[in-house]
Amino acid sequence: MPHIALPDGLPGISAPMVYRPETAEPLNQLAQALLRGHDTLPAADCELIATYVSSLNDCYYCQNIHGAIAAYHLKGDEQLVLDVKQNYETAAISDKLRALLAIARKVWQGGKHVTAGDIERARQYGANDLDIHDTVLIAAAFCMYNRYVDGLATWQPRDPEFYRWRGAVVGQEGYLNLKRERIANP
Amino acid sequence: MPHIALPDGLPGISAPMVYRPETAEPLNQLAQALLRGHDTLPAADCELIATYVSSLNDCYYCQNIHGAIAAYHLKGDEQLVLDVKQNYETAAISDKLRALLAIARKVWQGGKHVTAGDIERARQYGANDLDIHDTVLIAAAFCMYNRYVDGLATWQPRDPEFYRWRGAVVGQEGYLNLKRERIANP
Repeated sequence: MPHIALPDGLPGISAPMVYRPETAEPLNQLAQALLRGHDTLPAADCELIATYVSSLNDCYYCQNIHGAIAAYHLKGDEQLVLDVKQNYETAAISDKLRALLAIARKVWQGGKHVTAGDIERARQYGANDLDIHDTVLIAAAFCMYNRYVDGLATWQPRDPEFYRWRGAVVGQEGYLNLKRERIANP
Repeated sequence: MPHIALPDGLPGISAPMVYRPETAEPLNQLAQALLRGHDTLPAADCELIATYVSSLNDCYYCQNIHGAIAAYHLKGDEQLVLDVKQNYETAAISDKLRALLAIARKVWQGGKHVTAGDIERARQYGANDLDIHDTVLIAAAFCMYNRYVDGLATWQPRDPEFYRWRGAVVGQEGYLNLKRERIANP
């Protein structure tokens, strides 16, 4: 049961977002700016970073919904999402994304853990300043979203079909203007 | 030296905010919604929670700037800010804020650490759902801001006068529409 009276039937972060629209708006705008990708960092990579950090924080809702959104951007490759969560060093991803995931892991441990060597490795594999900036902020932001979702003890459905359905909706439409009727299980 | 090429002479989070305005806007809007207080949780309490979490994360810039903003709202009581950082259980604050700081500490450890007992203690001292919601999200958000500031190795001035000056500006004006010329040291 959630720690405060949240609207019924809304999974994960969507319940406190409906409860407190003043904070939901910037939280969604931040996700939209960070997770839809840019010229040199595709949305699939951004969502894999988000999923990986959420798995490190053991947040069931976030790792499953962002894993599903990543899989949507990866044409349904759920196995790759699992591989990244289990061991990104051996997963079939680019060396650049591997180096960015290493930076994300350091950010998860704490900002000061990121070293010049971590940055240098990412640059060697083609990461630019914007890729590095967004990786740091995605990892940092999921240290927030995960704590928000679990810190209020939100309801987190266990049905994988829910996450597939919802992941496809967010993958197509993004994080803005999501209607209440599109959040609950269909 | 910062890990990426950030604008010179801008302290802490303001440098990556100028570098990446698309994410700066929601980050500032979130701070505005969370830290300016509401009917039952004054801005001073919100800023003390932000300062305390930033000290747990050992983020020099954030604990000093938000400590200065807290002191501004507390009519200059810098000692109380230090007391809260050192040991909030014995600081001269309300029992309600003490209970909220205990929740913030749990959120810092990880969202699942928050217990029904922590929530019950806060309610006994008068906290309502909105106070608890905002406490959880402030603590979670500073686990993001702190990692963003330190994860990019931003420049963080050591002059206490800078933080007093800047804390008063933000305390008066809030987090929106902050001009570049109002960010650098005067």
